[in-house]
Amino acid sequence: MLNDLRKDYLLDRWVVIATHRKQRPRDFLGKERASREISNKRSCPFCPGNERETPPAVLVYLKSRRGIVKGRDEDGVRHKDWLIRCVSNLYPAFSPPEKRESFKSGKAVGHHEVLIESPNHSEHPSVAKIEQLVHVINGYRDRLKDLSSRNYVRYVSIFRNHGADAGASLSHAHSQIIATPTIPRILQNELEASKSYLERDGSCAYCNILDSESGGPREVWENQRYFAFAPSAAVHPFELWIMPKNHETTLLDFDGSSVIKLAEAMRTCLGGLSSLLNDPPYNFGFHIAPVADAKHYHWHLEIYPRLSIWAGFEKSTGMYINVVPPEDSARNLKSTIEKLGD
Amino acid sequence: MLNDLRKDYLLDRWVVIATHRKQRPRDFLGKERASREISNKRSCPFCPGNERETPPAVLVYLKSRRGIVKGRDEDGVRHKDWLIRCVSNLYPAFSPPEKRESFKSGKAVGHHEVLIESPNHSEHPSVAKIEQLVHVINGYRDRLKDLSSRNYVRYVSIFRNHGADAGASLSHAHSQIIATPTIPRILQNELEASKSYLERDGSCAYCNILDSESGGPREVWENQRYFAFAPSAAVHPFELWIMPKNHETTLLDFDGSSVIKLAEAMRTCLGGLSSLLNDPPYNFGFHIAPVADAKHYHWHLEIYPRLSIWAGFEKSTGMYINVVPPEDSARNLKSTIEKLGD
Repeated sequence: MLNDLRKDYLLDRWVVIATHRKQRPRDFLGKERASREISNKRSCPFCPGNERETPPAVLVYLKSRRGIVKGRDEDGVRHKDWLIRCVSNLYPAFSPPEKRESFKSGKAVGHHEVLIESPNHSEHPSVAKIEQLVHVINGYRDRLKDLSSRNYVRYVSIFRNHGADAGASLSHAHSQIIATPTIPRILQNELEASKSYLERDGSCAYCNILDSESGGPREVWENQRYFAFAPSAAVHPFELWIMPKNHETTLLDFDGSSVIKLAEAMRTCLGGLSSLLNDPPYNFGFHIAPVADAKHYHWHLEIYPRLSIWAGFEKSTGMYINVVPPEDSARNLKSTIEKLGD
Repeated sequence: MLNDLRKDYLLDRWVVIATHRKQRPRDFLGKERASREISNKRSCPFCPGNERETPPAVLVYLKSRRGIVKGRDEDGVRHKDWLIRCVSNLYPAFSPPEKRESFKSGKAVGHHEVLIESPNHSEHPSVAKIEQLVHVINGYRDRLKDLSSRNYVRYVSIFRNHGADAGASLSHAHSQIIATPTIPRILQNELEASKSYLERDGSCAYCNILDSESGGPREVWENQRYFAFAPSAAVHPFELWIMPKNHETTLLDFDGSSVIKLAEAMRTCLGGLSSLLNDPPYNFGFHIAPVADAKHYHWHLEIYPRLSIWAGFEKSTGMYINVVPPEDSARNLKSTIEKLGD
């Protein structure tokens, strides 16, 4: 009985889908997960009251009688009673240029920020109030707009690490934002492939993926604006993509009502994942058009549960093995979400 | 203070080298490592006496009065008193074709084998006797030759996972061999880049890497035939490459005396890594020319210690962050190896 060998929709990325020795959700429940978790709640630098333990905020959302007010920490003063808070990473991988340093110098010019998603330590997207997630998404959009305006920035990566096994070093709900001086490889490849696709077929590759996955065996969930599904060549067990139904290139393309719908999609899908798999570690990353114009691109959010380890084969070849067929992931996630909604 | 942004010698792979917040070897000693280890020594399917717990061996080395004799398990009989033993993986990702199935069918046609490196449970390359490692390397070569002759095989990946955090599910010393029906992406990219290099510069890209790294700050160790160094755009902390000094395309190009020298290089480098970093989890993978002729390629062994986690940024962009500059890795590894040799 042979396993499937599948290619990504656009990338030159191949994955073996184990139809032969596939694993079930209960194989991933991770009874030892708790022991690996980060236990730093007592002295959390991201919790309210500890604002001085981080660099000054480049963005805070504050509640006022007239709605949300946006601000930043200035003149040594740290804002209190914030709803979300975005600060420079204390150990940045990328830093703003000093004295006209440019990309050519081989230096990691850019920005590296942490978006603290809530004053509540454990208000992760899987359990967050929708209105709080709306603040988070709007925070992403504000930082994306600001960082994109810098002349040394070519791409802005917005991502999240959840759990120690996914690389999180603090357990307070937070995302990260990295602005890079070059377009990263995976994005560059997606951009080139979707451009070729448009030139050849006259339509958006991702819009066509949506059409073909809609109503199929890998569909997980949808609302008016967003469609969630397991990609056909999923590299990770229970991998999940959330894609806007409209052709939008980046997070700046859409309006407030769409933000609420995106918050709902993230809350529902990550809540389903957490319920099905005992709050698994995961990474997510937004794939968006780079700063420069790319009308052929279609932004989406890719969610990677960390339930298996990329070993010597994956690391040295760039080919992958996935022990959970995406059709099985989708069916299980879909029914879990339906039960939660009852 | 800006970090470096470096590109791989040949691949379109960028890595941030943290010169700003770099970490030292003692940060990686992994005091909790033991707890994550695989404790299955008591009923190990790879230990002598348990041969029936695996599929029949496709290759065994046996000691006889006239030297090493090669054989295979046949007719339900399992060889005993073997030196090394190669069996099909009980849960293969790739399997031989049934009834003329071809690559086009989208099936994972190929082979997936386990090479048991020693009858001694813990005879890992870092502590192995040189003569035992010679058997292991000759075992790789025998399997490579055999698998390469199948008409549905395009590439043979020989790799090793050491420790649970590197994806090993059994702790008995073993490697894996996967034969694929297509050339994996990383190899394909290296092949294309080294071909272009040859056409442009008239010389081998890897021979030139050897020349430029020799005697430099990233040199780790060498003997008459092999050179070990930390690559300039290392993606992993303490990443290490071992490369033949002669221009050789694959593991089948060299003779017995070179096998001994390779065993010595692996023993020395992996022994140094183990001593410096408290027996860290690691993967290694041989990068060799594919089955079809590729005279421009230059085989080498890449060793990736698993001391950091690829998180949302790495997974969604294909760009990497390495918190240990390869110059520091090399200096530490070099001095550790020198001390061990005293």
